[in-house]
Amino acid sequence: MRRIHELQTPALVVDGDVLEHNLRAMAEALPGPRLRPHVKAHKCTALAARQAAHGHRSFTCATIAEMEGMARAGLGDDLLLANEVLDARRLGAIDGRVTVAVDSEETIAAAAAGGVREVLIDVNVGLPRCGCAPTEAGRLADFARARGLLVRGVMGYEGHAMMIDERAQREAVVAESMDRLLAAHAGVGGEVISAGGTGSFDCNAAATEIQAGSYALMDTAYAKLALPFRPALFVLATVISVSEDFAVADCGLKALGMDHGDPSIDGARVWFCSDEHVTFAADGAVRIGDRVRVWPAHVDPTVAYHEHLHVAVGEEVLDTWPVDLRGW
Amino acid sequence: MRRIHELQTPALVVDGDVLEHNLRAMAEALPGPRLRPHVKAHKCTALAARQAAHGHRSFTCATIAEMEGMARAGLGDDLLLANEVLDARRLGAIDGRVTVAVDSEETIAAAAAGGVREVLIDVNVGLPRCGCAPTEAGRLADFARARGLLVRGVMGYEGHAMMIDERAQREAVVAESMDRLLAAHAGVGGEVISAGGTGSFDCNAAATEIQAGSYALMDTAYAKLALPFRPALFVLATVISVSEDFAVADCGLKALGMDHGDPSIDGARVWFCSDEHVTFAADGAVRIGDRVRVWPAHVDPTVAYHEHLHVAVGEEVLDTWPVDLRGW
Repeated sequence: MRRIHELQTPALVVDGDVLEHNLRAMAEALPGPRLRPHVKAHKCTALAARQAAHGHRSFTCATIAEMEGMARAGLGDDLLLANEVLDARRLGAIDGRVTVAVDSEETIAAAAAGGVREVLIDVNVGLPRCGCAPTEAGRLADFARARGLLVRGVMGYEGHAMMIDERAQREAVVAESMDRLLAAHAGVGGEVISAGGTGSFDCNAAATEIQAGSYALMDTAYAKLALPFRPALFVLATVISVSEDFAVADCGLKALGMDHGDPSIDGARVWFCSDEHVTFAADGAVRIGDRVRVWPAHVDPTVAYHEHLHVAVGEEVLDTWPVDLRGW
Repeated sequence: MRRIHELQTPALVVDGDVLEHNLRAMAEALPGPRLRPHVKAHKCTALAARQAAHGHRSFTCATIAEMEGMARAGLGDDLLLANEVLDARRLGAIDGRVTVAVDSEETIAAAAAGGVREVLIDVNVGLPRCGCAPTEAGRLADFARARGLLVRGVMGYEGHAMMIDERAQREAVVAESMDRLLAAHAGVGGEVISAGGTGSFDCNAAATEIQAGSYALMDTAYAKLALPFRPALFVLATVISVSEDFAVADCGLKALGMDHGDPSIDGARVWFCSDEHVTFAADGAVRIGDRVRVWPAHVDPTVAYHEHLHVAVGEEVLDTWPVDLRGW
C-alpha cells in the first residue's frame, strides 16, 4: 500500500471517505434518475462509476470528449451533452444513448446531420449563456421534430443562482428560473425537465432531474453555501523553501483553477500563486519537506490540469484513477 | 494543407509569422547564450527547437517533467531547473547537462543525493518566493561545494518587477534586485548570473543570461508593457449560441489561464467565462458558426490545458505541435 507522503507533488488527492459521504448524501436526496451527475466536475470515469454504484445511470457532459469517454467506459446508458455543438458527427458515432442540447435551428440541423437522434431544447432561464428564449422553445421543438429528431423535453441551467449565499434569495432565483423553464416546457412537451446544480439540488422542485456535479468533490467556493457535502479534493504539495515571513510549496496556478481566486491552506494565509508555486504565511512553524494540503477555490478547472486523481483514506493511497475525460 | 476553419474548437493556435518575429527580435537583442529561454511559457519542445534554431542552446525549466522532455527531444545541452526540489533522482537520471537551483541545505543535500552535479544558488531578490537571503548565498555555496557539487553561480528572479507598466520604475526595481543578486554573487563566485524575464529583457544589465519565456507567445497582460514582441497565441473558438445582447463561443475557463483575468476578443467585450463557454458582447453582428480569436490574459497556464498547438499563417495550418512538457 502506498502512503500519501510517497506521492510525487503536486498530486491531486481525493479523500475517499469524504467522497463516499458526498455520493451517499446526494443519492439519498436524489436517488437514481432524479440525479444526472455532471462529469465535467471530475472528468474521471472511475469516479463516475462510483456515482453509478450509488444508483445513477444517466450522466451529464459538457464536451464531446466527455461523452465519448463515458461511453467507452461502459457508462453510456443515457448521456446528455448539456452544451451546443455545430459538428455532431462524433456524437452520432458514439455507441450509447446520446442526447444533445439544442437552442437554434443551426444546432438542430447539426444534430440531425451528425446522426444524433435525441435532443433537449436548451432554454435561457436567466444566466447569459446558451439557451433560447422561453417563447422560442416550442417553435424549435417543432423544427427538431420536423428534422426527425426525438425531443425528450427541455433543459435550463440556473447557474446565476448557484453561488448566492443566502438561501431564501437563492431559492427565489431558482424558482423564478424554473418558471421560465416550465413555460418553455409547456410549448415543447416531453418527459424531461433537466436543470439545477449542486447549489440548487434541494430547492429545485420543478426539474425532473438535477445536473449536479460539484457535490462529489466540492471546493472552497461551494463550501460557503452550508450544503451537506464536504470538500473532498485537495492538491498535496511539498514545502520547498522557507523564509522568515513566508513559505513556498510546489503547487502553483498550473495545478489549480484560479477563476474563483486563490486556494486555501489550513492554518495559513495564501499570499499568491505563481506557475509552480504557492507562497503562504503559516500560523505555526513550517519546515522544508513538510506536506501541505492546498484546497482549490474551483474544482472543475483544477481537475482538468491533472493526469491522475489519487484516492486516499487517512495516510493510505487506496487507488489512483486516470483523469481520462480531459481535452475536447 | 489544412485550413484554420477546419480545426475542431477550442483550438490553441500560434500565428507562425508573429512567433518568428518575436523569436528573431529577442535573438537580435540577446543572442545565443545571453538568453536562456524559459520553456514553462510554452511547454512545447517543437517551439523550443525553433528557439534553438535562433541560436539559443541553453534552456530554463520549471518542472522535472520539462527537464526530462527537453533532454528526450535532444535539447539537453544545458538545462537549468530554476526551481527547488527535494527529490532530485529523476534529474540525476537525465541524459544531458543538468543544473538545479538550490536555496537551502536541504535542497543542496537533495541535489547531491539525486546525482545532480551542478547547481546555482537561488537568491531572493525581492519577490517573496524561493531563494535564500543574499547574505546566506556564500555559506550555501560553500556547503554545496563541500558536498561535491559544482556551483556555477547565482540566479534570482525579479518577478515583482515584470508587470510594472512605467518603464523607469520597472528599471529601478530591476536594478535594486540585481544589486542584491550581485552582492550574493560576490560571496558565491562562478560565471553564471541568471535572472530576468520578458519584462526586463532589455533593462537587466547585471545578468549574464536572461530567463525570458513569455516573449515567444506573449499575452494581453504582457502586451501592456510596450515591448517589441506581439501577441502570437490565441484560442480559436466557434460561436455556438447568439442571443439578443450577447453571444457565446466554445472556449471556456478550462481552455484558458484565468489568474490574470478574463481573455479578450477583438471588437467585443468579454462578460465572463464558464467551464466551456465565453459569453461576450460584440460591436458588430455575430452569427452562429462564426470563428472568434480569444486572446488569453496569461499564456503559461493556457498552454498547459492543451494537448496541441497549431501553427498557422493566415488561414493555413502549417504544423501541429504536441504540447509535450505538461504535467510534473
